[in-house]
Amino acid sequence: MLVGAIEAGGTKFVCAIGDKENQVIERVSFPTTTPEETLAHVFAFFDKYEVEAIGIGSFGPIEVNEASGKYGYILSTPKLAWKNFDFIGAMKARYHVPMGWTTDVNAAALGESIFGAAKGLTNMLYLTVGTGVGGGAIVDGRILEGIGHPEMGHLLVKPHEHDHYAGFCPYHGNCLEGMAAGPSIDGRLGVAGKDVDPDNAVWDYIAYYLGQAIVAYTVILRPERIVLGGGVMKVPGLLNKVKRSFETLLGDYVPVPASDSYLVLPGLEDDAGITGALILANQQL
Amino acid sequence: MLVGAIEAGGTKFVCAIGDKENQVIERVSFPTTTPEETLAHVFAFFDKYEVEAIGIGSFGPIEVNEASGKYGYILSTPKLAWKNFDFIGAMKARYHVPMGWTTDVNAAALGESIFGAAKGLTNMLYLTVGTGVGGGAIVDGRILEGIGHPEMGHLLVKPHEHDHYAGFCPYHGNCLEGMAAGPSIDGRLGVAGKDVDPDNAVWDYIAYYLGQAIVAYTVILRPERIVLGGGVMKVPGLLNKVKRSFETLLGDYVPVPASDSYLVLPGLEDDAGITGALILANQQL
Repeated sequence: MLVGAIEAGGTKFVCAIGDKENQVIERVSFPTTTPEETLAHVFAFFDKYEVEAIGIGSFGPIEVNEASGKYGYILSTPKLAWKNFDFIGAMKARYHVPMGWTTDVNAAALGESIFGAAKGLTNMLYLTVGTGVGGGAIVDGRILEGIGHPEMGHLLVKPHEHDHYAGFCPYHGNCLEGMAAGPSIDGRLGVAGKDVDPDNAVWDYIAYYLGQAIVAYTVILRPERIVLGGGVMKVPGLLNKVKRSFETLLGDYVPVPASDSYLVLPGLEDDAGITGALILANQQL
Repeated sequence: MLVGAIEAGGTKFVCAIGDKENQVIERVSFPTTTPEETLAHVFAFFDKYEVEAIGIGSFGPIEVNEASGKYGYILSTPKLAWKNFDFIGAMKARYHVPMGWTTDVNAAALGESIFGAAKGLTNMLYLTVGTGVGGGAIVDGRILEGIGHPEMGHLLVKPHEHDHYAGFCPYHGNCLEGMAAGPSIDGRLGVAGKDVDPDNAVWDYIAYYLGQAIVAYTVILRPERIVLGGGVMKVPGLLNKVKRSFETLLGDYVPVPASDSYLVLPGLEDDAGITGALILANQQL
């Protein structure tokens, strides 16, 4: 018995075939171009197999509300060719199997909760800090979605007293994403994060914003662990700064696991999303 | 078939007997004094009936994690006589029936989601703004709890540019509760909120903090409706100020229901908690 999985990223697509233990049997990857061209690659891959379900973790925003007429669509993305694209509709027209549909970060959260750094935990959160900030949560073993999927990166934050950057988010300026995602570093210093000294004060600012956000996730969701992924989190020392910032800001009010086990780097690295999409496929059966 | 319910508040206890349709058959109320004295009143009431389950919504913080050895305890409350009191232990020693155990605000959320201002909605949040700020969420029809219950009132907020109050929260100073709960009004102006003109700028500050918090609840949980209760929310005009603040801060980024149906006052008034506790009792059967 085989299942299929798609990690639909804004830059590249990963497609995989797996078994019912979520082991990858074959995988391919190709750039995200137009929906027509990209789906042609997807079809060429899946046509070779007989899959019994497909799981998709997609860049967003997407419609996940099954009561909506736009369920399965990509919504108002800045990638204009994909805006209002009926992704699940296109897939269902070709493959008559059950399909799981969620965001890329929700899929990554699911993957990390089953096989990664939060293995076996039923209440956890996955946050990625890269070109944007996004997150997905597992609550009681299930992906958290209300009338739509979370937008964890658009929390409002208090500016650091020494940070005069206005933020790059086109909607909120200085929300978490606007102040802590990769482009904010270039916005402040004119160079990419990878070229900035780990002792630069900018990492203290970013740790301050992430600490505030982690307080919010903590008091609202009370997860057992938070996995911090994405390129920005690979900066040496940043995870420790985030832990100290979080501890100071939380002020010992809510009991949380010791921060070394509470705030951790991913276990699956770049495989979290496709692994989660495979799990999602198997959950449809 | 009868069930029992307790709304255990910091000031008073409400006990009720209800049927399987969650209709109240009898209720009593008495002041919260010592655990011994208060439980004696509770036992005197329930001893008159044969109940098949009991639901309890308690002031907190409480231990809701069934894996903890302190499950059923009241934890580090400033009400010292109740600190580390084994509430469920005391109840189970007297009544050998299944018991539901959650916070007072989670119970109120459940009540409002079944019979109140969010009737029929499976994703909602209840926030009370009174002597403190607390909240409970229903996600997919179930009370949201991770490794503990939420502490929705302790979100960090950005100070309003004209508000120089330091906040009264002993843990965080100027967190949401420290800046928006009732005592903050007295802390700023030296008089209780009920004696402050509805045009006073303090209500703009409070609306600003609540607006920020509602953005956080919205982007993390994506509820279908948020019910705003508690004494402070009864100030004329405050709900409208909160709606405008929220809309401005969210910046049209995440689709939410129109704010008149998204942000609403409670439907059950002071009965939300005991109603939720009855529902919780029936859910144990």
